[in-house]
This record gives sequence, structure tokens and C-alpha cells, in this order.
Amino acid sequence: MSKKFVFMFSEGNETQRELLGGKGANLAGMTNLGMPVPPGFIVSTEACAQYTKDGKAINEDIKKQIFECMERLEKQMNKKFGDPADPLLVAVRSGSRASMPGMMDTILNLGLNDQSVEGLAKKTGNPRFAYDSYRRFIQMFSDVVMEQKKEVYEHLLKEIKNKKGVKHDTELTADDLKEIVKLYKDNYKKNQGKEFPQDPKEQLIAATKAVFRSWDNPRANTYRFDNGIPYEWGTAVNIQSMVFGNKGETSGSGVAFSRNPSTGEKVLYGEYLMNCQGEDVVAGIRTPMKISALEQQNPQIYKEFVSYTQKLEKHYKFMQDMEFTIEEGKLYMLQTRNGKCTAAAALRIAVDLVKEGMIDEKQALCGIDPKLLDALLHPQFVAKDLAAAKPIGKGLDASPGAAAGKIVFTAEAAVEWNKKGEKVVLVRSETSPEDIEGMKIAQGILTSTGGNTSHAAVVARAMGICCVVGCGELFVDEHAKKATLGGKTFNEGDVISLNGSTGQIYDCLLPTQSVDIPTLLAGDFGTIMKWTDKYRAIQVRTNADTPADTKQAVGFGAEGIGLTRTEHMFFEADRIMAMREMIVAKTVEARKAALSKLLPMQKKDFKEIYLALEGKPATIRFLDPPLHEFVPHSDDDIKKLAKELKITFEELKNTVESLREFNPMLGHRGLRLAVTYPEIAEMQTTAVIEAALEVNKEKGWNIVPEIMIPLVCEVKELKYVKDYVVKTADAIIAKSKQKLTYQVGTMIEIPRACILANKIAEEAEFFSFGTNDLTQMTFGFSRDDAGKFLDYYYNKKIFEFDPFGKIDFDGVGELVKMAVEKGKSVRKNLKIGICGEHGGDPESVVFCHNIGLSYVSCSPYRVPIARLAAAQANIKNPRK
Amino acid sequence: MSKKFVFMFSEGNETQRELLGGKGANLAGMTNLGMPVPPGFIVSTEACAQYTKDGKAINEDIKKQIFECMERLEKQMNKKFGDPADPLLVAVRSGSRASMPGMMDTILNLGLNDQSVEGLAKKTGNPRFAYDSYRRFIQMFSDVVMEQKKEVYEHLLKEIKNKKGVKHDTELTADDLKEIVKLYKDNYKKNQGKEFPQDPKEQLIAATKAVFRSWDNPRANTYRFDNGIPYEWGTAVNIQSMVFGNKGETSGSGVAFSRNPSTGEKVLYGEYLMNCQGEDVVAGIRTPMKISALEQQNPQIYKEFVSYTQKLEKHYKFMQDMEFTIEEGKLYMLQTRNGKCTAAAALRIAVDLVKEGMIDEKQALCGIDPKLLDALLHPQFVAKDLAAAKPIGKGLDASPGAAAGKIVFTAEAAVEWNKKGEKVVLVRSETSPEDIEGMKIAQGILTSTGGNTSHAAVVARAMGICCVVGCGELFVDEHAKKATLGGKTFNEGDVISLNGSTGQIYDCLLPTQSVDIPTLLAGDFGTIMKWTDKYRAIQVRTNADTPADTKQAVGFGAEGIGLTRTEHMFFEADRIMAMREMIVAKTVEARKAALSKLLPMQKKDFKEIYLALEGKPATIRFLDPPLHEFVPHSDDDIKKLAKELKITFEELKNTVESLREFNPMLGHRGLRLAVTYPEIAEMQTTAVIEAALEVNKEKGWNIVPEIMIPLVCEVKELKYVKDYVVKTADAIIAKSKQKLTYQVGTMIEIPRACILANKIAEEAEFFSFGTNDLTQMTFGFSRDDAGKFLDYYYNKKIFEFDPFGKIDFDGVGELVKMAVEKGKSVRKNLKIGICGEHGGDPESVVFCHNIGLSYVSCSPYRVPIARLAAAQANIKNPRK
Repeated sequence: MSKKFVFMFSEGNETQRELLGGKGANLAGMTNLGMPVPPGFIVSTEACAQYTKDGKAINEDIKKQIFECMERLEKQMNKKFGDPADPLLVAVRSGSRASMPGMMDTILNLGLNDQSVEGLAKKTGNPRFAYDSYRRFIQMFSDVVMEQKKEVYEHLLKEIKNKKGVKHDTELTADDLKEIVKLYKDNYKKNQGKEFPQDPKEQLIAATKAVFRSWDNPRANTYRFDNGIPYEWGTAVNIQSMVFGNKGETSGSGVAFSRNPSTGEKVLYGEYLMNCQGEDVVAGIRTPMKISALEQQNPQIYKEFVSYTQKLEKHYKFMQDMEFTIEEGKLYMLQTRNGKCTAAAALRIAVDLVKEGMIDEKQALCGIDPKLLDALLHPQFVAKDLAAAKPIGKGLDASPGAAAGKIVFTAEAAVEWNKKGEKVVLVRSETSPEDIEGMKIAQGILTSTGGNTSHAAVVARAMGICCVVGCGELFVDEHAKKATLGGKTFNEGDVISLNGSTGQIYDCLLPTQSVDIPTLLAGDFGTIMKWTDKYRAIQVRTNADTPADTKQAVGFGAEGIGLTRTEHMFFEADRIMAMREMIVAKTVEARKAALSKLLPMQKKDFKEIYLALEGKPATIRFLDPPLHEFVPHSDDDIKKLAKELKITFEELKNTVESLREFNPMLGHRGLRLAVTYPEIAEMQTTAVIEAALEVNKEKGWNIVPEIMIPLVCEVKELKYVKDYVVKTADAIIAKSKQKLTYQVGTMIEIPRACILANKIAEEAEFFSFGTNDLTQMTFGFSRDDAGKFLDYYYNKKIFEFDPFGKIDFDGVGELVKMAVEKGKSVRKNLKIGICGEHGGDPESVVFCHNIGLSYVSCSPYRVPIARLAAAQANIKNPRK
Repeated sequence: MSKKFVFMFSEGNETQRELLGGKGANLAGMTNLGMPVPPGFIVSTEACAQYTKDGKAINEDIKKQIFECMERLEKQMNKKFGDPADPLLVAVRSGSRASMPGMMDTILNLGLNDQSVEGLAKKTGNPRFAYDSYRRFIQMFSDVVMEQKKEVYEHLLKEIKNKKGVKHDTELTADDLKEIVKLYKDNYKKNQGKEFPQDPKEQLIAATKAVFRSWDNPRANTYRFDNGIPYEWGTAVNIQSMVFGNKGETSGSGVAFSRNPSTGEKVLYGEYLMNCQGEDVVAGIRTPMKISALEQQNPQIYKEFVSYTQKLEKHYKFMQDMEFTIEEGKLYMLQTRNGKCTAAAALRIAVDLVKEGMIDEKQALCGIDPKLLDALLHPQFVAKDLAAAKPIGKGLDASPGAAAGKIVFTAEAAVEWNKKGEKVVLVRSETSPEDIEGMKIAQGILTSTGGNTSHAAVVARAMGICCVVGCGELFVDEHAKKATLGGKTFNEGDVISLNGSTGQIYDCLLPTQSVDIPTLLAGDFGTIMKWTDKYRAIQVRTNADTPADTKQAVGFGAEGIGLTRTEHMFFEADRIMAMREMIVAKTVEARKAALSKLLPMQKKDFKEIYLALEGKPATIRFLDPPLHEFVPHSDDDIKKLAKELKITFEELKNTVESLREFNPMLGHRGLRLAVTYPEIAEMQTTAVIEAALEVNKEKGWNIVPEIMIPLVCEVKELKYVKDYVVKTADAIIAKSKQKLTYQVGTMIEIPRACILANKIAEEAEFFSFGTNDLTQMTFGFSRDDAGKFLDYYYNKKIFEFDPFGKIDFDGVGELVKMAVEKGKSVRKNLKIGICGEHGGDPESVVFCHNIGLSYVSCSPYRVPIARLAAAQANIKNPRK
């Protein structure tokens, strides 16, 4: 027996989404529930995989199975497919596991030809209906199977309507429609070079193939990539006996949601039209009626439909999105699925369903896509405006949300315009720490260079400000206050809009809907967030470098800091000079003198962060970036700085040159700096320990500082630096006469550290995975450089997702797992977290839960997302 | 019972080198053989480890064990340690597993003090001997235990000799020596602030501690690092009862080799002095006698000694290096070890010992250090000259050998001066492909920048030319024809010498000893090499990019090419223009047009290489470096090139800018180039396949081309490129009507490729490890940048060897093993090799053998080393 590729609806059930696709599984499910579903069958997703394997051809075995099922359908319907007198007609629809736009549209009325249309007319006594069905079929088949634009047919239809002097399709007579069918067929022949296919079997196989083919069209590929749907999943094809909404005024079609998908309100929401087929309702040719009108028009049908919607909602435990048809007064259910809705609606529905006792909290949590929350936390464009606007460029979606305002090119201008009450968007080639003030008050930030870990991206994410970076086609001239993009020149004050969630840029002022966080937290959002904490097994911390970011994150429920990047503190204007003095120092003494200037500032930072955390833990990472990031590189800037530092230009130039690296990513940074200059680690230890001692004393808290040494590849280098840390810390603690425990751990971000994690765990008291760097080194490409070729990789389906957005489970993930196992083999209760960007990606959070991490850490605005993802992970795979 | 840390000689044996050190194990061995070894005991290497663990202190347990053994020694010798009337005196010597210079020297006569020296004088009736022994002891103790320079004592001795009007120490009387002892003791007190220790037990513990301490002195550390000896091994301490060569004219001391260590000739070779202690023989104070003179002077002793040397050679199966003492006409053996000798001698001895039937070929092979061979293949300095010369700078030892000549700064000047019959050394900031002609005829090459994989290093190694690169302190101004180093300015024509084996640079003309390869191959070297082939399990291939290198490597026994870097062919002057045309091409067609110019040249290269290989296999790697390596970067050069390419400066400048990368190591290179420009892979496939077809036809050979796709991290990208290769190759083969098989494999050099080697093996027909890149990515540092901080790592013992010289078995090695296992799990007979620099490192070759690789590939001059290492590996761990 060969493999079963084709299934009658009655042979399946709603759990078989993988095999039958979402639509097929639900049709089977509704059939099993005894609802009036027109019978049919499903060509499985495995048939799609076979089609791809067979060089994009449907093999004989699958064809045979299709026609066998067709015979069974014929028996059920007591009609023959292709019967000239009384033809069995079918609808053909795509249906992948996840509902997916961009796939093939529906083909209705398949099975009609020149003969059977006559039979249908006679049998139904309704030639108008028969020819209307035929002309629709020809148009849909041409469009979706033969890829001929449907505008041609619409144009022909319009011409006839004009000729006949009618306005609505429904006013056309049977003869008019006959004429149209002829025109359509002539047009088909002209375009395709052959007659419109008359063999229903040929029509069916062509339509099935078209569904499979549509799985690989550009729009589907883009959607799949954006939503992380694997290419190998494939789509199923649903072949369903037709019922007709266009059989006259007692027939009709409609779509409805069991609740309002915009607000989540518990009220039936939808539209219908009498005497039409499904596509007319959404096509906007006639204005559809509100579903509530059906109650007056046909109370019996309405009541029946309402009972189905309730039954389905109860069954699927979520708001349902349904299609139905009324054929000569009889209701048929054509489709149901969990409805797509706004983020606010999703939360409200979840909370309401729990209140209604239909689901429990766990089910509610699992029903919400964590990524939806982003939309609640950041300003958004109005969907309608967005759909109408045409982007003029695209960059990297560095920080989500929407921004619209007047362009400024400098931080100073941003502040100035802001004072005048203007909303501004800061446009620069790149940002630097000096721009912070301007960045804070901007609606959004746009840069022409840099990646998702550039200064602009990191700062904007932390502040929750919309940001698009690395727009290669954007050229910015800050001095001339001009920018060009999409062939247009922008001056200061010109308007621009940014979509930080997609990276798209618009040359107009799109209205934004703002967000009030306290209101949000007081509503359904807050309820859901509280629930997440009941079910999580894994902690959620935040990456934060400032007291403000820390407070924001704590407000979002962060349970501590997983990563404070201390170097960001050095970039601030008053500190960078001391930092630079340290860099140009020629002796340990001179270096220590410069460091002693940084000490009080750094200590103050840490105290403020500890206070903002209100006793929650903080992991503080020691200096990480290569020193050349702190010095200027142009001769002019070097001259200026040399003067300030009171050294010669040549001397400073030499220092700058000596810091230059071939591969900064693989250079003198991380704990390598502390190995060469242990006095840096001593200063930072002093700041951390003294800050903790003072705050503990003032507040009576018991903060346990966590010192994190970055970039380890060998346990001996960790031990070398740790020895300095411990010696410094113990001396300060002893002198203080206070009690203080502290931990020294490390960041695991180099492949060798994963391989030798058992050795490293002998010294490290905790691990935190830096999956950004680990991804770069494991793949052997740098994020900054990979942009040039990654698009090729996506287009050619070599990569199906961005490994910097979601952990590469097969490669990087294996190393992470190895490190967890090896680390725990030495230190059973080793605390292990992740502080790379992946800490805020829902799928990556699930991975972290599954491999037994203690916490994830992410930027403040991603904390709610991580909390929800963590709860879902533990509900689905409870930690023992 | 506590652990046993101290062993009598009679309790050990010669297999216990790890526990007892080399010297101790051999003393035990000789004792067991019944030779006249003065009894003694050994403080083990484990005691040294314990000393380090205990914070550099000898604990009470170990002290107790030492004095227990001392008691046993006292019983054996029938004397008491510290007996004022007849003291037991001992010698204290260091002894690690491997013989190691830089460790503590010997202390003789330990146990003497102000009282017992009198006792000794009385007991022996030889006060001169007693005081001579005491003054030697004070000097040695001060020197090696208290670290006071012995020059002070030598100066005092000289003063007395002058005062007394004598020339030789032996002319001093007992009274003179008494006076000297007093002076020495006064000096000791002045320097140390306390009396010379009178308690023999205190002396003994202090000396033992000094031995342990010397394990960690800078000279020992340097030697250990250079020779890959782990710090954790530690040293043993040998405490041996004294016998005296300074008891008058019937006493003496000497050292001897059982064969000539310079030539290997089978003749006793050594020196001795009567009435002296051991150190005088080597100190050069008196001129020692040839060992042959002993035959006349004391035929009985001589005969006895010869019989011991023969017995020891038979026992240890190698030339022995021995120390002996004659005390009042009785011979004592104080030490034996395998002798260090020149490379030529090592080979001759090995061959002779086999001829003499003393050892078999396997034993002969295992007795030779593969690294010695380097010295035979490259010109060398004369050891004596080298010892006398003072280096003025140091770079990286990029290609071994010695070079001396006049400085030239350009390739043109090199050619010019060479025509005049001058030997030249090419000194540049860096070399480029245009310098090839000058490099070929230079004695050596010196650059101020670049690492061990820079152009200069790779080319020099392939040609077997001495090369030192990356000398940071060297400043070269090619235009002004000037260089500065070590505070000195060099002009064209000034002399310089380079030691490519150490990286050292000399500002004088050191004579070099040249090498004649054919003669070498005809002699012992050739014999040994033939033997290696009998016992190897693993193939040895070569990395070669030119027919000349290929021929050289085949002459050295290479069994094929493991790596041809095709890009080196593109750098040649007539080709780089076509390459640049390809780079600036804006369309696929323009790119193909440029590539079509490269095709015939590349095909010719491959044909020549195939011919040079005479049917042996060749792995050809497709284009690997980022494209920016092929374009100029200064505005002047860009202008020039733009003119040649007939495009505008701006256009070319833009192209050059767009190729710039943040981290070129992690950028757009390797097969990523072929993914974006598959036409490059098509051209290279065409060249490889057509060349093979033509050579097979001409010669009737059956070459199987091996196409290697570099830098894979994901099987889908390999498949994508492989599909182009296979399609192109199959079409050409079909058209040719010839039969040709070929293989498509990949280079494993990215961590992710190791983790997913099972997936990759589904497409790859062979693996070749690129351990250079794999090391960089696994450690997370680039070779070019790590130079800045690696010295700190070595000094602080964080790293004990250079991971680019020897495979990092713990980290990189684990990834390699994982890849081998995963690869073979999918393809049982997967051919796996290594083509990184490590392929020529003996220890790495052993590793490759042990994990089951099929071959190693290395630069031509390393082929003999790899062959020997491979044979040793298989003899020690035979492959099943």
C-alpha cells in the first residue's frame, strides 16, 4: 500500500493541522461536530512535500488518490463530477498549518464546462445562476491557476454592464452572463493560446498544482520568513463540494467573528450579502450588511448560526473567524479558525474567556502570541493609514513602534525644536553617546549605518523609542542638514514617518496612536502579566545601563538586571575624557590616576541602579569593548583631543593607530583588557562593592552584587582576573566591617567557552550567555558585515530566519546546551542566564526554558514578552 | 599513611620519569643495573606540585620523608649527615621529566659547615680538599639558593690568587683556601644580613626549595613555552651522596657522549679533568683533556668506563650523555641521559643503531624529534656564532632557516643586486604578489607587519625561504630606502641576518651553512624518510599553489596536494586586472566576461599542477578571500586603476568603499562569494574539469579532481554551490565524451560546521579542516590582532603554547573530533584531512592520526616532518 495522501473530511480531525493544514483540520473537526459542512476531502501537506520532491509535479499515485476521494464524494453527494446534466462542483482552497496570506485564493465552481453549465441551468431552472457561476469560475481559474490578472475580466464585465446600462452584477440577465462567458473564454484563448479546459479532472489537477505552487510565491516567502514558518511545512489543498450563495434572494454568503476582533467585545461581528458568492462580501463590489441584520432578515438562520458560533468558540476556546453560505434558505458552515485580532482584543478575549469559565489561565496565556504585546507597548500607526501609505525606503527594524515628525539632523536641533513644541525624528548617519539628550526626546531615530547592536539601536530599545537603522540607501549630510532617500531630498523640518516594527520609512506624517503605560498595566495587560508570574519557572531580568531604564523595566516586571554594560557609562561627555586619559597612559600609575577619576562616577551609577532595583539583583559586566571605540579617528578630532589631553598630535595619533584592529570583533576586548590592565578590573570592583555596601547600609537591604567578566575562552584567564576582583573586594569588605556576599561569574559568548564550560564552572559562580557574539563566532560572520550577503541567503532559502533574531537551535543552541550540561556537571546549582538580544525573542525564551536556564534578560520593553513566553514554555513543558 | 613523596634510588626505576624526573629515573635505573652510582634519593615531581599548592612551601610531611630517606642514606654510607667528625655530604640537583636548561644548577658538598670541614680535613688527612669543597659549597649555595651572583665570589678568588701570585686554583694551599672561606662567609653575611647557615638540615631544605623555585624562573618558563612543556609537570630533586673528584691527582671528573653528538660517528666523545669537581670541566677555568687521553692515563678506569657506556647505550638504545667522577682511583657514574645532538647526528645514530642491530626501524623512528628535521632542510647559522651574536629585534618565526645578506627594500632592487652576485635580504613593511620575483631570489624576507598567514609568510614557507614577519618595532620606509630597528638606521646595502626559526634579527653578517637537498635525500635522511612510509597509517599531502612548490613537495614525499589556494593565482600581475574587472562588474554578464579572461589562465595553472603531481591527487579550493583584498585602497592607486578600468574615480572609490568590512575575517568570503556570484564557481569548475580532462587524455592518467568549497557553516549553502559545480562539471564531461570522476568536498573551519558535520557530510564527499580559521573562531580572537595581548597570556601562564602553532586539543581539538565522528556517522568512509598550518606540527599530526584522519597537508618543507610524526604516531598507537 502506498502512503495515504488524500483524506475525506470525515477521516480527519482538528488535531491534524500538520498533516491536513489548519483549514482542512477544522473542516474535519466541524464535520465531526455534526455541523452542516459541505462534504469534501483534503490533499495533505505531505503531498505538497512529495510534489516538491518530484520536481514540482503531482505524481500518479496522488492523482489516483484524489480521484478515488472524488468518487467517494460523488457517492455522498449523489452527483457526478463532470456530469453534463447535473454536475458535482467543488471549491478548491489552500490551507497550510498556520493561516498565511499570500497563498492561493479560492477557486469556486470548479467542474463546470460548456456542457455542464447548460445541465446546471436546466437542473436548477436557473440559467442566470448557472452562467454567473461559470463566468466566476473562468475568471478565478485564469487568475489563480494561469496567473492572468483578473483586472482584464473585471474590465470586460464592466464594459458589458455599461453596455446594458446596469449598475450591479445582480442586474445582469442570464443572457448577459452567457455573453460574458463567451467574452471570457475568448480572452482566455487569446492569452493562453489554448481553449479554456473543459475536462473537470484536468481543471482539478491544475488547481491543486496551483495551490502547491503558491506556497513558493514571493509574497508567501516573505510572510513565511517574517513569521518564521519553515518552507518544508508545505500546504494542504481543500476540495469541497460547492454550496451556492448566488442561487437568488434566499441564498447568500458571509463572514463573521464570534467577538469583535478590534476590541475583543463579546458580540457577534461580521457581514453578509444575499445572492452572492463568498468573494463578493470582501471584494467591496456591493456594500455588505452587518451580521446583526440577518436576525431581522432570517431569524431562524441567524439563531442557528449563533448557536454554531457559540459551539465553535466553546470547542476551540478562542474567538472564531467563520465563513458561511446560505443556499436556498439552508445554512452551511464553510470554514472556521481562531480569529486574528488586535493585541488589545487578544488580551481582552483571553481575560473574558477565563471570566466566562470557558478556559483557565493557562489556556488563556497559551492562546496569546507574545509578539503581539510589542504593539501595545509602543505607539502604532493606524492600520488603514499604513496600508494606504507607500514606503520610500527600508532599514533594519531596530526598535519597534511608530514615529512621525519633523526631521532634525543633530541632537541640539532635536532639543531646540522640541522646546518649540514640535515632534521630531532624529536622522543621522550614526549616533554616538553625545546624542543621548536629543535621542531621549525624539519620536524616532533613523540612521543610515549600523546594525541591530549599534549605539542607536541599543539605546532606542532600552528607552522604548522607535528606531530604524542601517538604511543603506539613505545618505545623510549632517553639516549641510540634508538627507536623500528614494530619490528625494529632505531638509530640516521636512516630515517623515518611521515604522520601527518593519523598518519602513515614509515621506509623510502618518498619525500615530500613543500608549499610556500605567493605563495599560491597570487593564487586561496587567491581569495577563500577573498570570504569567504564576506559571513561569524561569526568571525574567532586564538589560539596563541607566536608572531610568531600570525603573521602566521593573515597572514591566523585571526581576533584576541580567546585564549592565558598564562601558556605556564611560561614553558620557564628562567621563569620556577620563577614559581617554586612561587609554593614553603610558604607565600603570598614570592609568590608575585616570581610573581614580572614573571611580566616583561609576560608583554613583551603581548606587543609583541598585536603588532603582529596590533590592533586586544586578549583574554588572566589566568593561567589554575594544579601547579604540573611545578615541576619535579623524586627524582633526585627534588634534583637538591631543590639545585637551596636553600631549602631541603625533603621540595621540600613534596611540590611536596602535589601537586599530583588523577584526575588532576578534580583538583586544572583554576580559582581555583586564588581563593586560588589571587595574581597570580593580577600579570597577571597587565601584561595585562600595556602592553595594553603602546602599545596603542606607536601606538595610542585602544586595548580592554579581560581577560578570566578559569574553572568557579559557578558565585560567578568568581565574587571573577573578583573583584581582576577589582580592580587591575582600579588602574593601573587611575594611567596611559590614557583611557582604558577592558573586563572580562570566559571560559565555565564545565557542571554546562552551566546549570547556566544565573547566570554566570551576571558577565561575554563574554563567550568562552572550548569544549575539556566540552567534557571530559560531557562524563565522559578523553582524555588521553579514548584511551584504544574508539577503541572498534568505532569498535562496539557505537560511529561513535571522539567527540574530532567534537562536539558531541547531548550531548555536547545541553549543549552549553543551555549556549548560558541562557547567552543571561541575556546579550543580550553577545560575545560568542569557543576556543577548535573543532573551526577548519568544521562541528563544522557550528554548532557554527547555534547556534549564535560570533566567533570561532582555531590554526593558521586551520584559512583558519574555514573561509571557516563559509562562507558555512552562505550561507546555513544566519544569520538574 | 600519607602519600610517598621521597624515594631511594633503589626504590625507583627508569620508567618513572613522570614521578622521579629524567635524572632521578636514570639514577635509579643505573643503580638497578649494578653500576657504581653513589647512593641517594629523589624528592618527586609530585612533591613539587604539592609545594606549589601549599603556596610555595615544603610541608612538614615532605620534610619528614626527606629526613627519613637521609637516615637510610646514612645507614648505607655508614656516615652521619652533619657529623662534625666525618660528615655525609650530598649533591643536590634538579631533574624534570624532560632535560631542561634554565633550571637550578647543581649544589655540591652540601652538609659542610665550620665544624665538619675540620672533621673532613682530619678524616681525609687532606685539609686542602676539605676547604676547597667548603668554599665551592658556599659559592654554589649563595648563587643558586640565595640568588647572589657568583661573579662576586669569583672576583674574591681571583684577588687571592693574584695576591698569592698563582694562576690555577689547584695551586692554592689549604691555608689560602681557609682564607677564601672566611672571605666568602663574610661576603655572605654582608649580602644576606645573616650568617651562612650551619645546620645541614636547613641547608638541605633551602636547596630543595631552590630547585622547586627554579622551575618557575623566567629562563625555564621561556624554554618550557618554546618546547611545549606544561608548567604543571614540575621538577624532581635529586639528593645524592658526594664522591670527590677533587681529592688529588688520583681523582677527577668528566662528561662524555657514547658517540660524537655533532656527526653521530660511533666513537666515545668527551672531556675530563683530574683533581676537580664536575663544574670545572665545563666552566673553562682549566682546559680539559680529551676522553681518549684517559686510556693512557688510567687504562683500567677507561676500560671500565667504556664498558658502562656500551651497557648504557644498549640499555637506553640511544647515544648516552654521561657524567662520571673518579675518587681516589675509583670510578663512579653520576648521571646518564639520551644525548642531545645535531639533526644530522640524530639521523646517523638512528640508522647506525639499526645497522648494528641494537634497535629496529620503529625504535629508530621514535627516537628522532621531528622538529630536528627543519634544521636539515634550511640553511642554519653556526651555533657558536649564533651564541655570540646579540639580536637587535624579534619578529614572528614565519619560515625557518637562516639568512644573511645586504638589505634591499624592493623586489626590483633584490633582482638587481642579485644580478651583481650579492646575497640580499628583502626588508619591507609587507609583501604583495608583485614582489614574488624578488622574494624568490632573496636569502630571507623581513616584514614589519603581518602574521604567520600573511603573504610573506605563506609564500616564504612554500619556497623554503627564511622569513621573519610582524616585527612591530621595525619601521620601514620603502620610498626613502631606509629602515629603523633597535635604535639603528639601516640603508640599502647594509648587512642584516635573520633567524627564521626564532624570529631573531641581527645587525651583522652571520655565516650560514647551506643545504643540498639531493645529497640530503641520498643519505641518512632519505633512509629515515623511506622508513617512515612503511609505518605510517595517515597520508601526507602538501599545501601548494604553484608547479614549483608542488615539485618540491613531491620530492619531499608528498602524496598529493591537500590545498591549492586558487586566489594566489589571481594575484599575479597579468591576472589581477581581470579579477578587478570582475569585481567592478555591475551585471552578471559583465562579471562573466571578466571571468572568461581568467578561465584560460586558471586552467593552465591547474594543468601544470596536475603534471607536476604525476597523477597524484589534488584538492583545489575555490576562491576564498574577501574581494577587497584584490583592490587598491589609497586614493592615488584608485585613481590609477580607475583610469585603467576606464571608469570614473568616484565609481571605483564607491566600489572599494562598499567592499570595506568591519571584520574581514567574519565577512563576505569563502563560499559566501559563490552564493552571491555563482558564476565564479562555474568558471573555476570549468578550469578544474577541463584541465583534468586534457591531462588525463594527454598522459593516459586517471586524475580524480577534488573541488573544495571553503567556509561552509550550513549544509544548504554547500548544496547551493555544489549544484552549480555539478551541473557545470557534468555538462563539460558529457561534451568531452571522456570518463571523469570528481569529488566535491568542503573545508571545515567554522564552529557551526563542526557541530552540524553530520548534515554537511550528506553533501560533502570529503572534509578538510582549516584549523587556522577554526582556531580563530573557536577562541574568538584573530591571529592578526591577538599579537597585542597574547604575550601577556604567555607570561601569565594563561596559555602555555601558541594555539596557531599546535592544535588546541582541549577546545579546537574537541570540535575537530566531534566533526570527525558526526561526519563518519553519515558517510562511513568519508575522506578527512587537515590543511591548516597545524598539518606540519608533529604533535598535531599525532592528534590527527589518533582521531582517524585520512591525511594531513602542510607546506612543502614540512612534509618530511609530518611523515616522521605520522610514522611515530602509528608506531605508538597503531591504527586498526
